[in-house]
Amino acid sequence: MRYVIIGGDAAGMSAAMQIVRADQKAKVTTLEMGEVYSYAQCGLPYVVGGVIDSFDSLIARDVETFRSKYGIDARVNHEVTAVDVEKQTVSGNGFSVDYDKLLIATGASPIVPPWDGVELAGIHTVKTIPDTKALVEDLKDAERIVVVGGGYIGLEMAENFAQLGKKVTMIERNPRLAGIFDPELSENVHVEAKKHGIELRFEESVEAFAGKERVTEVVTDKGRIDADLVVIAIGVRPNTSFLDGTGIHLSGNGAIKVDAFMKTNVENIFAAGDCATQYHRVKERDDYIPLGTHANKQGRLAGCSMIGKPRPFQGIVGTSVIKFFEITLGRTGLSEAEIEELGYPYKTIEASIPHIAGYYPEPKKLDIRLSYHAETEQLLGGQIIGKEGVDKRIDVLATALFHRMRISELEDLDLAYAPPYNGVWDPIQQVARRK
Amino acid sequence: MRYVIIGGDAAGMSAAMQIVRADQKAKVTTLEMGEVYSYAQCGLPYVVGGVIDSFDSLIARDVETFRSKYGIDARVNHEVTAVDVEKQTVSGNGFSVDYDKLLIATGASPIVPPWDGVELAGIHTVKTIPDTKALVEDLKDAERIVVVGGGYIGLEMAENFAQLGKKVTMIERNPRLAGIFDPELSENVHVEAKKHGIELRFEESVEAFAGKERVTEVVTDKGRIDADLVVIAIGVRPNTSFLDGTGIHLSGNGAIKVDAFMKTNVENIFAAGDCATQYHRVKERDDYIPLGTHANKQGRLAGCSMIGKPRPFQGIVGTSVIKFFEITLGRTGLSEAEIEELGYPYKTIEASIPHIAGYYPEPKKLDIRLSYHAETEQLLGGQIIGKEGVDKRIDVLATALFHRMRISELEDLDLAYAPPYNGVWDPIQQVARRK
Repeated sequence: MRYVIIGGDAAGMSAAMQIVRADQKAKVTTLEMGEVYSYAQCGLPYVVGGVIDSFDSLIARDVETFRSKYGIDARVNHEVTAVDVEKQTVSGNGFSVDYDKLLIATGASPIVPPWDGVELAGIHTVKTIPDTKALVEDLKDAERIVVVGGGYIGLEMAENFAQLGKKVTMIERNPRLAGIFDPELSENVHVEAKKHGIELRFEESVEAFAGKERVTEVVTDKGRIDADLVVIAIGVRPNTSFLDGTGIHLSGNGAIKVDAFMKTNVENIFAAGDCATQYHRVKERDDYIPLGTHANKQGRLAGCSMIGKPRPFQGIVGTSVIKFFEITLGRTGLSEAEIEELGYPYKTIEASIPHIAGYYPEPKKLDIRLSYHAETEQLLGGQIIGKEGVDKRIDVLATALFHRMRISELEDLDLAYAPPYNGVWDPIQQVARRK
Repeated sequence: MRYVIIGGDAAGMSAAMQIVRADQKAKVTTLEMGEVYSYAQCGLPYVVGGVIDSFDSLIARDVETFRSKYGIDARVNHEVTAVDVEKQTVSGNGFSVDYDKLLIATGASPIVPPWDGVELAGIHTVKTIPDTKALVEDLKDAERIVVVGGGYIGLEMAENFAQLGKKVTMIERNPRLAGIFDPELSENVHVEAKKHGIELRFEESVEAFAGKERVTEVVTDKGRIDADLVVIAIGVRPNTSFLDGTGIHLSGNGAIKVDAFMKTNVENIFAAGDCATQYHRVKERDDYIPLGTHANKQGRLAGCSMIGKPRPFQGIVGTSVIKFFEITLGRTGLSEAEIEELGYPYKTIEASIPHIAGYYPEPKKLDIRLSYHAETEQLLGGQIIGKEGVDKRIDVLATALFHRMRISELEDLDLAYAPPYNGVWDPIQQVARRK
């Protein structure tokens, strides 16, 4: 059985490992368009900031290991440009490989609109190791940095630049940062940004970049901003344009539609990770939230399906977390905006609660919002911002959401209590009790 | 409707508050044998150590607040010595109160065997504010402290004494500390104790105390230990002896048997907290694990039942956590010893995993053990010891146990990932995957 995997990162190599572990005689070919396999993309902002000391630290297993230890025909600089679903062949510049089972795990790429001057030196994205190496190289003489986009990557980059002592400006076309949180929580993020000297420009849109060879100004609908370096972080889109004409079904944004077993609509073709859709348990429909956790899970399950030991993907619940200087922003489930889009009747409870027993030294407040269905009382989402203990409560809420708990049932959980760790009722239970 | 509650602490006052909130005209009488209402017992060791600055910090609401703000007839120094279940009357020295609904929330008391010399000055328990005030008073001139018992209270007291610079010896009749953990994890605790200068004496049993007015030596089956002060922390027993002859059913250790609605077998009588049993969801039978979390939950639900708005107690899963110097010990579900007692076939997986992304600065290892049913694969228990992030994983496991997840289903959870908080697969998922 010839297994071919397009893409050598989280999803692709999770699948490859699943296959070779199950069948040591399996013939697995992996086709990576770049030169680096299997690295932790989420660590890239921290290499820029010097928090993580080298790009090499991010590489889980290098290409040689895949070849020599696991017998995978792991190829680099192999960009697939065409898939022939009839002949079961994938091909690119100077190569062609036949498959019995194919996994598409090509990931996603940063969205870069065709702004005037976008090709100038000094304008970067942060998605791959080569991207980020180029940025680091370019950063030495840069003092004034403009980050376009106030989402997770934008925030992480802004933090890391600020920690390096750079002058950072963030441009966000919406009126707030971290737009996947409810507006009530945004002010915490803005305060933290300003506290660390970051200039925030809201409701402002980039129109062009100016400069000779190198960018010197960002031109927006509201003015011009001096810049030695620019990072564009306004989102990603799935790398699926090479599938045009194959008949593989894509969703509106170009993500490959997969079922619970990572199967596409075309026989023997699977997809996983940032190039694919994810079933959302709370929305009860497919969604597109490209995160490393999902890529690893989907990749692994794609591998299971490809070797004939299928196990269904149980779906995502919309969990994510980010550090922004001294605060942590965590969320799971749906924001109010997402609930409204689905048209569910809902209520939201919010409160600020100390993260440990109030009488124990150094309690830090958690700003918590829990939303639930107004009729069924099913928990729909939780968002928390605070300095300590955010990730813990988000993971409990994520587990609760996974099991479709009702808001009042959170009280029933037997959570760990001792004064250094919690209140006798956990903060999320305290909020739930205010229903 | 006359509501009478015996006991003015967590369970009793949780019930009282539930009642007065639902019915502001309710006549609620609370009978507390001591003078202090509603305080956080779990904070007591930290007041001894000076980590928490005063006993007053532990008092959630004082007796005056219950009286003036909530209209509760909150009495102090009212020890109930008899219950007449026919006449529906409780009585003590010089008082008698009629009830329509009665809640017994008398808590538990430290077990103090009738050792010779146990009445000597300098020998203490730590369960109430008066207990602990006496200990603090007595501590000033004490240098050599013996802690009898290596369970949670013993560990917390030993830590706090050591932090004050005292010379601490722990005596445990079993061969290890923290016996509710699997033996494989005990060594972590022993290393931590020794690192902080605590002398450990295992498989040694106290036989007597020596001294004139004040204790000077602990006499054991293996020798004599100099002591200026002794703390006995070998467990508690429910305060239910005053119920003899009432016909109220007690379990083997004297805890009051309650149903899911906190009802005893006698009409109009309820019980909650450390004097009552708790249904254990994993054992699928009643258990006795006296903890503040359960007391608060049971008290609240007893209040719900008493006002005719019953809501069932969903049971405990055996969760607890403790800080011991720089390490955290957390557990939920069943230890191997408990599983063996139930006779389930089981398997245990263990591993040491960094608590955050391995490439992010300062990952700390978590020693994790997960046990599951060998046939159904249902998760039965989880234990973790480490320096960071233990309580988070225990709460996730507790939520998973609550929902009777199978070990392999842990992989499906959508937990929060960013390098400062987690690996892309959470450590508990990494362990679960080794199944």
